[in-house]
Amino acid sequence: METQTRPEFVVELTKKSVDLSRWYTEVILKGQLADYWQIHGFQVVRPYGFALWENIQAGLDARFKATGHKNAQFPLLLPESLLTKEAEHVEGFAPEVAWVTQAGKEELNERLAIRPTSEAIIMTMYSRWIDSWRDLPMLLNQWCSVLRWEKTTRFFLRTSEFMWQEGHTAHRSAEEAREETMRMLEIYRDFVEGELAIPVVPGRKSEAEKFAGAAETYTIESLMPDGQALQSATSHYFGDRFAKAFNITFQDMDGVRKHVHTTSWGLSWRIIGALIMVHGDDAGLILPPKVAPVQAVIVPIPGRGGEDGGVTEAVNAAERALRRQFRVEVDRSDRSPGWKFNEWEMRGVPLRIEIGPRDVRSGQAVLVRRDSREKSSAPLDGLVAAVEARLADVHAGLFARARALREERTSSVATVAELAATIREQPGFKMASWCGDAACEQTVKERTGATIRCLPFDSQGQTGACLVCGRPGPHRVLLARAY
Amino acid sequence: METQTRPEFVVELTKKSVDLSRWYTEVILKGQLADYWQIHGFQVVRPYGFALWENIQAGLDARFKATGHKNAQFPLLLPESLLTKEAEHVEGFAPEVAWVTQAGKEELNERLAIRPTSEAIIMTMYSRWIDSWRDLPMLLNQWCSVLRWEKTTRFFLRTSEFMWQEGHTAHRSAEEAREETMRMLEIYRDFVEGELAIPVVPGRKSEAEKFAGAAETYTIESLMPDGQALQSATSHYFGDRFAKAFNITFQDMDGVRKHVHTTSWGLSWRIIGALIMVHGDDAGLILPPKVAPVQAVIVPIPGRGGEDGGVTEAVNAAERALRRQFRVEVDRSDRSPGWKFNEWEMRGVPLRIEIGPRDVRSGQAVLVRRDSREKSSAPLDGLVAAVEARLADVHAGLFARARALREERTSSVATVAELAATIREQPGFKMASWCGDAACEQTVKERTGATIRCLPFDSQGQTGACLVCGRPGPHRVLLARAY
Repeated sequence: METQTRPEFVVELTKKSVDLSRWYTEVILKGQLADYWQIHGFQVVRPYGFALWENIQAGLDARFKATGHKNAQFPLLLPESLLTKEAEHVEGFAPEVAWVTQAGKEELNERLAIRPTSEAIIMTMYSRWIDSWRDLPMLLNQWCSVLRWEKTTRFFLRTSEFMWQEGHTAHRSAEEAREETMRMLEIYRDFVEGELAIPVVPGRKSEAEKFAGAAETYTIESLMPDGQALQSATSHYFGDRFAKAFNITFQDMDGVRKHVHTTSWGLSWRIIGALIMVHGDDAGLILPPKVAPVQAVIVPIPGRGGEDGGVTEAVNAAERALRRQFRVEVDRSDRSPGWKFNEWEMRGVPLRIEIGPRDVRSGQAVLVRRDSREKSSAPLDGLVAAVEARLADVHAGLFARARALREERTSSVATVAELAATIREQPGFKMASWCGDAACEQTVKERTGATIRCLPFDSQGQTGACLVCGRPGPHRVLLARAY
Repeated sequence: METQTRPEFVVELTKKSVDLSRWYTEVILKGQLADYWQIHGFQVVRPYGFALWENIQAGLDARFKATGHKNAQFPLLLPESLLTKEAEHVEGFAPEVAWVTQAGKEELNERLAIRPTSEAIIMTMYSRWIDSWRDLPMLLNQWCSVLRWEKTTRFFLRTSEFMWQEGHTAHRSAEEAREETMRMLEIYRDFVEGELAIPVVPGRKSEAEKFAGAAETYTIESLMPDGQALQSATSHYFGDRFAKAFNITFQDMDGVRKHVHTTSWGLSWRIIGALIMVHGDDAGLILPPKVAPVQAVIVPIPGRGGEDGGVTEAVNAAERALRRQFRVEVDRSDRSPGWKFNEWEMRGVPLRIEIGPRDVRSGQAVLVRRDSREKSSAPLDGLVAAVEARLADVHAGLFARARALREERTSSVATVAELAATIREQPGFKMASWCGDAACEQTVKERTGATIRCLPFDSQGQTGACLVCGRPGPHRVLLARAY
């Protein structure tokens, strides 16, 4: 096979296992996912990276719509006086807000904030739109970019401007709003695990780690290969706090005017950073098949002395057949097969299909999985089924590998001293018992750099001694350093 | 029929024929397409309005992708020094730019502009990304919002922040770039006429009416019911002007380094303003079927004394059958049928389906077209085909009516005096001959308020006497007052 004689995999790429951070930046630039912009902390998302986001958007949007949500578009700017209406909320965002102070040649009377999130904007509109129980629930979502001025930034993971979706809903009762909060968290969990092949731990945030202004925050946490956690999506229950700050009331069926109960939930393009880090390897990106911009690349293999041997026709036929169901590319460029193999591996295409004169003679194609490099043959007239099966294999393979790595890097600790030692030597997820006291939480953070990522749903009910004070700890918590 | 006894159509709505401007604002607010925001010139787009935009976006995006374009995401902000790089371009936008001068608690060293358009941003990236003829053509598009501070604003038609798409392409040759410019204009024409049922006049802009920095600007112009023109989409050829300002060169196949030739083209949500004005009537909105958020609404008609008479089952079956192919709603609320008829007519749903006990007994449903109010029957087990046919009828009906109105309001004028008189008395499209002199163009504008909307492609080659100076006019121009 040609693969035996090809040059080493993209030799100029830093090895992921050696320097994750440098590898991460390199695969993003070389893989043409994104590029730098002239303003610190801003990025340009190139077509290959943006197609990934479009596929993520399409998958989530369909789930949102299937559960009754509708999209709307709210403005980019809000007056300073509005942002400051909910005190705890503004306190959380004030240091990160970009301010518009001039328009054309005029100085504005009041500074306008570029939205760091849209709670204040949307709640203002809800107070106009909601009047009766008939108007509820109000289930809106917005796809947009928001801006939070960041000092230390990284492609996708932390950018001053980032794209996300933010869902904002209003309900008749606390119970219904809580159900919504959990429904959306479960949609995120299902999507991130089922489509992006990233295993996550769903749970509740501690008081200290909650979203600014929320009554309860829920999260899904994933583990990066360097042992750091990444908050992958959040869902917030606000109670009637925003409803009171923004005066959102409705006349209920019993004739009484009541405050609504609200939620919000969001997932941003940082999830792209997560999937790059979780799945990639020393040869480059590995994109999860369900959202990969190119799911399979066909590489025609020229015969000795340039004979065609029916390859052109077989490649065209394969492309036609596959295009109906998959996002497929044919690399017809004049590069060598070895160059193409490296290039498309580096760019993370989940499946490569090689078709040469020998393959045409035997009526077969060679399929190569990106994750395991496992090769198999498939009949040229049965490619659709074979590609479908292999892509499912790649998805399952990626998920299993990520879960195994996470399990390997998840352990229990009994004390803060033990946490401090192990988090340095074996970074990863650490489970411990916690009394629930904010002071103990603060001690953990100061002494170890780790934070309570969440109170995992499936670990509650287990009690033990608090890792700091030793008192009985009713909470089982997931600890890690975090992105 | 129930329709005989129902109250008058939405009596509280201003008549379109009496006060177009007021009617326009009312149908947008009552129809829940959009709402005001606290900052002058900004709007909130509500789910019903945004679904219209999503459908427009989906239709255009598919056409862009079918012609080889890819989406990308460029940043919201650009440094002042970058915006000023192409002199004529910045001059066109300077008075409308919103400036960020503070971030967090810091004053910025250099003002940052919120993009009024992304030429300067994208050309900067093209100078990084383009190196060889192999990189060309580069065919990118972006869906985003841009900001131009406006004094006089109206929902959708003129808003300080507006959503649009902006395509930006780079090519090896002037010829190829010109082909692209015309290809995209034709896509707009085809889409706006074929999907939105708005007839347009495609043509070239005069020098005075060109986009800031463009070598040539092309447009599609539509006519509003008050006789004013609306520029509905534009496509620009820049030559190598931006390539020179931003230093975008490539090594051609002959080994020589050359400047690329660029284009840009855009359509914004102002097209929603156009379709509202062109199609609506005294009873409210009429949304073109191919992009209507709700294409058909089913209204169950209760029997005398509340008997169900199989209506619930028939309605459920109809919904299931239609939902596979159409965007359909069932109004199961406790309002009266008459109220529902008015409400859904006001909101512009192209087709109403009434199902009552008598209809169930005869195995039929009553279909009512929104545009003509024409009623017809269709068998309950053949609804899909009937709805498909009626929606096509509505589309054809809307287009024919709009074209007839335009033809009725298009006439020729020989002199600027004649133009001044007729544009006041019979506002509309006026065709005239023009010598090509900018001074004559300026005279027309000053004396009549009308501008040259375009040099229509299909009218060139006709000569006559210039409407101002009387010299031989090689150009046949379309004149109108404009939004």
